[in-house]
Amino acid sequence: MGIRVKILGSNSAAPAHRRNQTSQLVNVEGRFYLIDCGEGTQLQLKRFRIRAQRINNIFISHLHGDHYLGLMGLLSTMHLLGRKKALNLYGPQGLSEIITLQLKHSETVFNYELNFHPIDTKVNKVIHEDEFIRVHSIPLNHRIPCSGFLFEEKPKKRRIIKEMIPADFSVRNIVRLKNGEDIEGEDGEIQFKNEEYTHPPKKSFSYAYCSDTKYDESILPYIKEADMLYHESTFLEEHASRAANTYHSTAKEAATIALKANVGKLLLGHFSIRYKELEPIQEEAQTVFENSALAIEGEEYVLDF
Amino acid sequence: MGIRVKILGSNSAAPAHRRNQTSQLVNVEGRFYLIDCGEGTQLQLKRFRIRAQRINNIFISHLHGDHYLGLMGLLSTMHLLGRKKALNLYGPQGLSEIITLQLKHSETVFNYELNFHPIDTKVNKVIHEDEFIRVHSIPLNHRIPCSGFLFEEKPKKRRIIKEMIPADFSVRNIVRLKNGEDIEGEDGEIQFKNEEYTHPPKKSFSYAYCSDTKYDESILPYIKEADMLYHESTFLEEHASRAANTYHSTAKEAATIALKANVGKLLLGHFSIRYKELEPIQEEAQTVFENSALAIEGEEYVLDF
Repeated sequence: MGIRVKILGSNSAAPAHRRNQTSQLVNVEGRFYLIDCGEGTQLQLKRFRIRAQRINNIFISHLHGDHYLGLMGLLSTMHLLGRKKALNLYGPQGLSEIITLQLKHSETVFNYELNFHPIDTKVNKVIHEDEFIRVHSIPLNHRIPCSGFLFEEKPKKRRIIKEMIPADFSVRNIVRLKNGEDIEGEDGEIQFKNEEYTHPPKKSFSYAYCSDTKYDESILPYIKEADMLYHESTFLEEHASRAANTYHSTAKEAATIALKANVGKLLLGHFSIRYKELEPIQEEAQTVFENSALAIEGEEYVLDF
Repeated sequence: MGIRVKILGSNSAAPAHRRNQTSQLVNVEGRFYLIDCGEGTQLQLKRFRIRAQRINNIFISHLHGDHYLGLMGLLSTMHLLGRKKALNLYGPQGLSEIITLQLKHSETVFNYELNFHPIDTKVNKVIHEDEFIRVHSIPLNHRIPCSGFLFEEKPKKRRIIKEMIPADFSVRNIVRLKNGEDIEGEDGEIQFKNEEYTHPPKKSFSYAYCSDTKYDESILPYIKEADMLYHESTFLEEHASRAANTYHSTAKEAATIALKANVGKLLLGHFSIRYKELEPIQEEAQTVFENSALAIEGEEYVLDF
């Protein structure tokens, strides 16, 4: 399955030109991870027929409203619709305070466990790990504490060549082959040499999400050779000084980061409300990094074969 | 102009069946007042081409998310789009805490004055007054502190009968006639008897908003003979026990309040997500109070001649 990134919103600051504020659904092997949650994200999930209750991990980059004001509504709806399953929430420390205060005033206690994991936005470290992926924080350079996220698929198992396997082969030995082991016969000699009975594992993909940030090469080591990079490109170069003042990036800067990090593909997003048409943003990025695409609401960007 | 009430959302709890959460725009003589502000209200304003910056007074009934989670986004967008004009915000005390905390973490200072007026949700009193209206709080009976609102047009001026007025009549005397005075001639005798030169003023309308609340007759004195009453009707009678347990009302209960308060018209809203079709709610109310209507998103309900 690889990694599938569905854009739920890619606007900055305020909704405009039928573009919602930032949110993305990352799907790895059918597991749903939500990155950021601008106002109306729960409506976008409904619109794209995505079952919110399948989300078990939510990552919030920072506490500007366009990245998290839809969170409280989403968490409440999960509660009201009967969620019992625990939910992991990753974000800056203040997020927990905000949620706690809102729950206090609404006199609400969720029926599910909300496990809050504060992110130290100054360091690059593994903040989440499960069967399929590791998520690393990426320290970004924004007006307020802000973290990007690298989603990295774990190494996958070797793939059995079915027609080579005897009918009475044990499950245990299949697992061993998938793990790359050779299988010995009763005489202790190698009977099934791994490379003859398996194909190499499928590639493990990686996806880096960097929003919001000014141009800053210090992130390069953390996103080096990612298969896909979402990098904010709030402005065009003609508004470069505005970008610098507000700790945002231009499309050209995003593309320069993509080029220097040698990523596979660049996704551009977090568009300023001043731009109704987005093509110039893509064109500007492509002058530096050819494989640049716009993050369009409702579109899915797939890392797979 | 009278009073015009535009429904921006009339669902309870969570958005469902293409119905948004609670919000209404009250328009009195071209002045915009917002009641409640569920998530996505700013999107609804855009959808219905209502200029958010024209809103100068916002009233929040209580701190359940479906009534206020769109507020922070709306206030932020007003700021980002350059608002300079002061805004009055009326709501339970905790609302100010929540906004202050969110502004702190986003390190944002609005460019406009946000004047917060805490509502004592236990008393009936005038909380807002301007040239055209008075707004009274209505203590409601809900799980958490909650206030309804009575919008009451101030008495209007008498209307000049233009064809009766001499061409050289002074502006000052016109104002006096509008205020109901007779005008004396130089000899001190009444020269222009008010009732001969003016029609009576147009009727002053009143609109009562009661959401959320369980059935409670103690509100009757505060909403008596309102021209229009919005009363929550979250449930049908078949779910009356659920209504009672959650401090909500049924359609029949809303209609009973309307009947006992002798209001002109009843608007039903705050529909449970369990009802896809709303006609049964209207039909149930009409068995008790004939002039009952559903509060439908995008529709405007007008009190005028």
